[in-house]
Amino acid sequence: MLKATIDADILKESIDAISALVTECRLHTDENGLSTRAVDTANVAMVSLTLKKEAFSGFESTKGEIGLDIAKLKNIFGMMGKNDLISLELPEDGHKLKVSFEGYRYSITLLDPNTIRKDPNPPNIDLPGKVVLSGNDLYNSIKAAAVVSDKIALGIDPAQQLFFMAAEGDTDHIRREFGKSEVNFLNGIEARSLFSLDYLKDMGKVMGRADEVEVSLGIDHPAKFAFYIAGGHGYVEYLLAPRIEAD
Amino acid sequence: MLKATIDADILKESIDAISALVTECRLHTDENGLSTRAVDTANVAMVSLTLKKEAFSGFESTKGEIGLDIAKLKNIFGMMGKNDLISLELPEDGHKLKVSFEGYRYSITLLDPNTIRKDPNPPNIDLPGKVVLSGNDLYNSIKAAAVVSDKIALGIDPAQQLFFMAAEGDTDHIRREFGKSEVNFLNGIEARSLFSLDYLKDMGKVMGRADEVEVSLGIDHPAKFAFYIAGGHGYVEYLLAPRIEAD
Amino acid sequence: MLKATIDADILKESIDAISALVTECRLHTDENGLSTRAVDTANVAMVSLTLKKEAFSGFESTKGEIGLDIAKLKNIFGMMGKNDLISLELPEDGHKLKVSFEGYRYSITLLDPNTIRKDPNPPNIDLPGKVVLSGNDLYNSIKAAAVVSDKIALGIDPAQQLFFMAAEGDTDHIRREFGKSEVNFLNGIEARSLFSLDYLKDMGKVMGRADEVEVSLGIDHPAKFAFYIAGGHGYVEYLLAPRIEAD
Repeated sequence: MLKATIDADILKESIDAISALVTECRLHTDENGLSTRAVDTANVAMVSLTLKKEAFSGFESTKGEIGLDIAKLKNIFGMMGKNDLISLELPEDGHKLKVSFEGYRYSITLLDPNTIRKDPNPPNIDLPGKVVLSGNDLYNSIKAAAVVSDKIALGIDPAQQLFFMAAEGDTDHIRREFGKSEVNFLNGIEARSLFSLDYLKDMGKVMGRADEVEVSLGIDHPAKFAFYIAGGHGYVEYLLAPRIEAD
Repeated sequence: MLKATIDADILKESIDAISALVTECRLHTDENGLSTRAVDTANVAMVSLTLKKEAFSGFESTKGEIGLDIAKLKNIFGMMGKNDLISLELPEDGHKLKVSFEGYRYSITLLDPNTIRKDPNPPNIDLPGKVVLSGNDLYNSIKAAAVVSDKIALGIDPAQQLFFMAAEGDTDHIRREFGKSEVNFLNGIEARSLFSLDYLKDMGKVMGRADEVEVSLGIDHPAKFAFYIAGGHGYVEYLLAPRIEAD
Repeated sequence: MLKATIDADILKESIDAISALVTECRLHTDENGLSTRAVDTANVAMVSLTLKKEAFSGFESTKGEIGLDIAKLKNIFGMMGKNDLISLELPEDGHKLKVSFEGYRYSITLLDPNTIRKDPNPPNIDLPGKVVLSGNDLYNSIKAAAVVSDKIALGIDPAQQLFFMAAEGDTDHIRREFGKSEVNFLNGIEARSLFSLDYLKDMGKVMGRADEVEVSLGIDHPAKFAFYIAGGHGYVEYLLAPRIEAD
């Protein structure tokens, strides 16, 4: 059983964070809120999202699992006004989620959670290099890199106290450096890994709206991007596998 | 002979109302203004439009018939400024309409009215259920229905004093209800018919700009949508045939 | 050697003026500024551009020639903020132009100037009819002509003191006349030539931003369009060959 009311913008922000990587997910509900964890079909990136009940205007739920077709829910985002309150309702053992707002009643058939990939286990990895920067700066760097290449290197240069991104095209290259005035170094340890821009562009669109994104890096290791949503009552983590750098 | 001056916005609004259904039409002129009535090629929808001479800044005309290629006239809409005065001129027995504004002189060859479908007779039907609602609300419902289906049901529930639209997709459905605060019930008699969204989306774009649209409905009958344009000096009626509901 | 700093808007304006006709060019540099002259691949139109050192915030250069891949430089325009200062740097005998701004360092490999078409010689022609009009008016006329045709006639009617453009479609035609209130007649001598709209649309987009464009015309002769950019510190000339008017 789920009975919740949420601001349209917070709902969209949360769903967009998931839909950057997957088109369906298992949503876990309990009395404290919602959560999900999913990997993309190619096993390259993972998203985990937590939305506390405080992110909702009203929230009541039993422990349960919902198989959500994300594309369907996104279809009706355009109908929602900026400040609409969206009501979500799922009866105990129900298979249709009722989404109501401003006179509309939308009924969306849920997926059987057993047909959706099991929740992935978060890998146990150590990513010692940590920086915090504005989501907008991060997203702009990603878009800039995409101009010359389909891969991007992210790294930390502890000697020069720089966080950098670099992309190499066939003949051109581009580099963006962030010094102390733009980046907060939680742990300025040496790091550098290469990533696919395909994934980063989709994730970047979501991260671009965050005031602050914490980036965790290693050497030829995955990257972790973590940020708050829903005015601090929600939390998103992206984990992205590295690409192997050719000689 | 026609010699008229009209505000660019009123001209566009009027032509858009016709072009939602047809690409050419017979425009009837006389000393009191313009009018046209046309059905789409599939005989599913009819538009009739009247534009009184009061809708024009200046209007002089003999009784006549003009074969208008609507697409050609729309081609130059982009060149017209928001508050431009558009001058239309057709000499007696002329075959070219002169459209002038802001230094531009555009000459558009007219069609022979005999090559355009004869004016349809308005069918004699009784549509007892009547509601009046904002054009914008109506258009938003149409767009919402299009998210899950290519058909929409429009109806009146007199017991609950509701005007509703409902659309059924393969797995999802959506319903929008309008109560007394949003709809004026001229005649809250039971009604419900199914319509093709293909047509309603095009008509809806035009109706969306009207403050008020009067919707007339029956049970498995056509729908009529009527609204004023040109600050009350013009009037548009759309008639749309119903779709048969499969069992 | 080149070491220059320039406002992002001035850089974009200058490069856009060239890229309306060609995708690569030989940029000549000396202590006084930059210049280039290029013809399009079909030999129909020529652009020449001069950018004085006063157009830059800082400018230092030896005499040299740079082979510029314009498309590559334009790729990064989207990353530049409205008031960013762009730094350009090319070491003596260097083959990579460094473009830096706001933490970004972009390195673009230059082309060997010898692989780019030699600078064309400006033809020695007399175009006695001259008018000066707003770039925006000129561009709007070009767009209007494109609605009915792919050719445009530009001309001066000295008897009526008019500059005009006219376009003939299969059935429609459009004419725009500019009288004394809109056009300054430097030399109101009779002129009329026909031009391809393909070229004029691209050039028009650039000219549309100029306060004033000087148009020089003859009878069945090329047209010359000249205007200042970079707040008066840059100058662009387009020369466009006429189309032969069929009987």
